[in-house]
Amino acid sequence: MNVVLIGAGNLATNLAHALVKARHSIPVVYSRTMQSAKMLAEKVSATPVDDISLLPANADVYIVAVKDDVITEVTEIIAACFPGVLIAHTAGTVSIDAVKADRRGVFYPMQTFSKQRIVDFRNIPVFIEADHKDDEELMMELARSISGSVMSLDGERRKVLHLAAVFCCNFANHCSAIAEYILNQNGIPFNVMLPLINETTQKLNHCSPRQAQTGPAIRHDRNVISNHIMVLRENGLHQLADIYKAMTESIQNLGMDSPD
Amino acid sequence: MNVVLIGAGNLATNLAHALVKARHSIPVVYSRTMQSAKMLAEKVSATPVDDISLLPANADVYIVAVKDDVITEVTEIIAACFPGVLIAHTAGTVSIDAVKADRRGVFYPMQTFSKQRIVDFRNIPVFIEADHKDDEELMMELARSISGSVMSLDGERRKVLHLAAVFCCNFANHCSAIAEYILNQNGIPFNVMLPLINETTQKLNHCSPRQAQTGPAIRHDRNVISNHIMVLRENGLHQLADIYKAMTESIQNLGMDSPD
Repeated sequence: MNVVLIGAGNLATNLAHALVKARHSIPVVYSRTMQSAKMLAEKVSATPVDDISLLPANADVYIVAVKDDVITEVTEIIAACFPGVLIAHTAGTVSIDAVKADRRGVFYPMQTFSKQRIVDFRNIPVFIEADHKDDEELMMELARSISGSVMSLDGERRKVLHLAAVFCCNFANHCSAIAEYILNQNGIPFNVMLPLINETTQKLNHCSPRQAQTGPAIRHDRNVISNHIMVLRENGLHQLADIYKAMTESIQNLGMDSPD
Repeated sequence: MNVVLIGAGNLATNLAHALVKARHSIPVVYSRTMQSAKMLAEKVSATPVDDISLLPANADVYIVAVKDDVITEVTEIIAACFPGVLIAHTAGTVSIDAVKADRRGVFYPMQTFSKQRIVDFRNIPVFIEADHKDDEELMMELARSISGSVMSLDGERRKVLHLAAVFCCNFANHCSAIAEYILNQNGIPFNVMLPLINETTQKLNHCSPRQAQTGPAIRHDRNVISNHIMVLRENGLHQLADIYKAMTESIQNLGMDSPD
């Protein structure tokens, strides 16, 4: 397919590599600054562009991988320059309504991307939404050419998915950041934690997180729990003590805080 | 070395396999029930025993891998039967004082163990404490024969280490359990999260959790944050909404909640 990529950030960079690997044609890479357009364009043998009106007019899909708050602005310009083309954004929490065009879509690959680390797209789930059935089918086909895990998903459930991803990725990572902070304060290097962290994740490939839960909270080991909270308070880390308590209660109660 | 292993639970099972692999002699395995003693003893070609007085008298070290609250009771019996032997427990949060003997030690391998999954001990950090320098050296040598990461650590810092492990392992896993719960409520299978979870952990092998932090909290993206909290509250998940808020604030403030 002919794909025009708008943006040259973390997601755009990883997506460009995956599309080229799947032998799609990416004639140009657009970014607001010529410098970042060039950086990505060079790597995927495309032409760098910093003016939307210079994009090709005949692409199968225009994928807009830009910051959430400029999606509307960028899609408006594309639709004005090339009426009738399919325009899709790539954001987890943004509604399809942010795309200002007749043929609207969402192409959401769920992963934590960085430019420095090109990840293998084969394993990355891609979630598709579109107004028109044939546009959805076109994007599903495109997604299936780079990923083994492609699903159609409406905006409401994509929002839930993104929320779940914040827990799995951002909050889980923050648990490690807290550990790093506590250890550093006590002169213990963080890297002693890596085998434990790796094994904790490995287990999830074999059983559900609920089944994999270990530790003082799920054992209701009150001695250890109050001892840990005391250590945090003694170190003046009251915010972390509150998080410790809340997480412990949540481990013990998950599912009891039931929907209305 | 001649090692006597007391206990046949998750840790004892994994430790027994590692010791045998490193060609140490484990003549007997003790458990309070003959059945569980047998289960482990069979696997490591040892004699099962359910009576402490029948343990060999001449072992280099007696490693007590039992539940925290019976450590004192078990070590008292061993010390009474075999005066003067080195007795070590394996618990992260328990003081060396729980060992009732003249030659006391702690042999703490930091990992999340299960009987079903025998892990490679080479990468597991082992933390050693002892009253006497030569007992410490003996246990360090034993630990180094099964692990590439052995450190001497006092009880206060071992407690901090265990607290950090609760964040990295138990609380990080609970973040995934929360995600699973939210997804299941919305008919989305949890396994779509696995590539994201795996990549989140992979990153920590290359950069610190603080540097690896991504997502709406660290970006101070108020729209997404309030949107997520609203989704949780709309679903009646008020406890999870509170955790979302607390984690978001903690990501934004880590290190500002400074020690007194």
